Amino acid sequence: MSDTQGKSIHCKAAVAWEAGKDLSIEDIEVLPPRAHEVRIQVYYTGVCHTDAYTLSGKDPEGAFPIVLGHEGAGVVESIGEGVENVKVGDQVVALYTPECKECKFCKSGKTNLCGKIRTTQGKGVMPDGTSRFKCKGKELLHFMGTSTFSQYTVVADISVVAITDKAPMDRTCLLGCGITTGYGAAVITAGHGGLEKGSNVAVFGAGCVGLSVIQGAVKNGAAKIIVVDVNDGKKEWSTKFGATDFVNPAKDLKEGETIQSRLVEMTDGGCDYTFDCTGNVHVMRSALEACHKGWGESIIIGVAAAGQEISTRPFQLVTGRRWKGCAFGGVKGRTQLPDLVQDYMDGKLKVDEFITHRQNLGGVNQAFTDMKAGDCIRCVVDMRKV
Amino acid sequence: MSDTQGKSIHCKAAVAWEAGKDLSIEDIEVLPPRAHEVRIQVYYTGVCHTDAYTLSGKDPEGAFPIVLGHEGAGVVESIGEGVENVKVGDQVVALYTPECKECKFCKSGKTNLCGKIRTTQGKGVMPDGTSRFKCKGKELLHFMGTSTFSQYTVVADISVVAITDKAPMDRTCLLGCGITTGYGAAVITAGHGGLEKGSNVAVFGAGCVGLSVIQGAVKNGAAKIIVVDVNDGKKEWSTKFGATDFVNPAKDLKEGETIQSRLVEMTDGGCDYTFDCTGNVHVMRSALEACHKGWGESIIIGVAAAGQEISTRPFQLVTGRRWKGCAFGGVKGRTQLPDLVQDYMDGKLKVDEFITHRQNLGGVNQAFTDMKAGDCIRCVVDMRKV
Repeated sequence: MSDTQGKSIHCKAAVAWEAGKDLSIEDIEVLPPRAHEVRIQVYYTGVCHTDAYTLSGKDPEGAFPIVLGHEGAGVVESIGEGVENVKVGDQVVALYTPECKECKFCKSGKTNLCGKIRTTQGKGVMPDGTSRFKCKGKELLHFMGTSTFSQYTVVADISVVAITDKAPMDRTCLLGCGITTGYGAAVITAGHGGLEKGSNVAVFGAGCVGLSVIQGAVKNGAAKIIVVDVNDGKKEWSTKFGATDFVNPAKDLKEGETIQSRLVEMTDGGCDYTFDCTGNVHVMRSALEACHKGWGESIIIGVAAAGQEISTRPFQLVTGRRWKGCAFGGVKGRTQLPDLVQDYMDGKLKVDEFITHRQNLGGVNQAFTDMKAGDCIRCVVDMRKV
Repeated sequence: MSDTQGKSIHCKAAVAWEAGKDLSIEDIEVLPPRAHEVRIQVYYTGVCHTDAYTLSGKDPEGAFPIVLGHEGAGVVESIGEGVENVKVGDQVVALYTPECKECKFCKSGKTNLCGKIRTTQGKGVMPDGTSRFKCKGKELLHFMGTSTFSQYTVVADISVVAITDKAPMDRTCLLGCGITTGYGAAVITAGHGGLEKGSNVAVFGAGCVGLSVIQGAVKNGAAKIIVVDVNDGKKEWSTKFGATDFVNPAKDLKEGETIQSRLVEMTDGGCDYTFDCTGNVHVMRSALEACHKGWGESIIIGVAAAGQEISTRPFQLVTGRRWKGCAFGGVKGRTQLPDLVQDYMDGKLKVDEFITHRQNLGGVNQAFTDMKAGDCIRCVVDMRKV
């Protein structure tokens, strides 16, 4: 039993006081976990575009002040009453897509989108409707049920999974979002439980998510893996992760050619699977229309800006293309994340290679700046150093 | 061997000379079938909205003069060299979706969209690039590879399937399009080879196709089958075919309610499967958004007008809804249509009930008028009587 159990912890956190402003490093109070809650000492956190999106103020559901961050790994400091799935001292990854194993969604066997705490998570509070964060006399909101930009955070017990302590946490934190999202889209969401051997695949956008889609495609034995990105610098990255081809639609298209028609030509009729990892609704359309007639499937992974809509002619679907999407790659965090960690430990899933930048908690704003530069795949923030 | 074999046949046909005009009953010349072609004496044909769409001139690919009609049954009069799948005297149904069993599409096992004669069929000619119809010194185009509005027609051998002579042809003709399209969408296209027992289903539009979706849903053991139609007269029809609920979105919605939200409420979270049988792109959107988060699948069956596009927020797909479509219900005509005829013979598939109107060939224009009236499900035209 830790000597902090049952007490508030005072620690540092990066607080987002208002939209469009830098995060502010503050001393905050983290209340003890209540029933079915877990308090985690966060060791490492990634910084993801979703954090930046909410911070920008463009997210219509974004509210402030809030503790952002959703890609974190750490150690269980204490647990509330009734918590059975983790114990003090466990190495864990926080799950913004929880898994209660009891709700209609979890029991369906068809989706990873647990419904149990969806409403309160969306409102930025714990399942009982309150916050565990205080700063300067104000309550701070939780973010995506995780809030990993704090040295200590409190999450619902269904929002955390214990993983082997043999896996370094500065790597496993990245399995809390980007890598899992892309890898899962290819090995779980595509087709009926993963894309088939010999499939021709196109990946739009070669950031953390896109590169992870490539890895999933490689694992499942894809034939062609064509990466589409407007940044030529991503060609080398793509090749390193196993892509077979690279097209820069801003430079490589001939007169009258579209990226759709180029991909259809390269694959003798269209791709079996395409993945949008850009969040751009026009790219999503291209990704659908680059699919093979009769069976090609396009999977939307990227998050579009508020109010944006996707469109296509219905003929595209009537002639057999399929449009779907996923969150967190379709991965059930508590059930399936340990398998991904094992894939990493077995050398089947690259994680180390993603880390191009590192910061301490005090440098978290620089991590946001770094992320927006083309040469950054992932910046990992060491939360124990300020 | 018939005494007409190898010779032209002179017979009556309903010719569409130009867009937007009535069909004209003409004496036409039907040339003998060439290699891998089959000449059919058409006994009965249905009249379908697709015929009306092309006749209206709104179909950008529609060309004239042409012999329309694609929902026909008849008897093989003669065959060209190399035809092995049917013989003279066979009762057959014409297939606007052919099945060659050899092309990439047919061999994929994933689609019914055979690619072998797609280009020439789209151009209104036989696979060798020529027409078998002549009238008043002009060549007439073929329609959808079938042209059943002629007393004799010539089709590719891959565009015809022999069926039992125990099934009356004034019924089986309807399996050439509408009934098969709806039934197949439910028992073949939905899910992984048909919707699952216990599924909640919504069917938008209760015409021939929609009523057939209901039948497929009943066969596969759906729980709720909710029909959405702006014509209250379709309620009785829907119930007769097995629907459990009926909603008229023009009258039955409360203040602030949408058809999506009503269906989500009626099904405790959304439908497992929805089917658009209207061709209206706004309805297609509603059908998608009425699907259950996490797994609900919407299938577009209706044909939209040229230039129309479907839209939605990508969030709908990222949260697990799936958008797809099918042509001819996903049914492989030569392989699977005999099974549907058997379902009909076994009393599992209603067909007789669809026939609300009958005409002779000379009354084909009245059949088009009838079709547009709300009380007509299908009008069957007896091609042997003028």
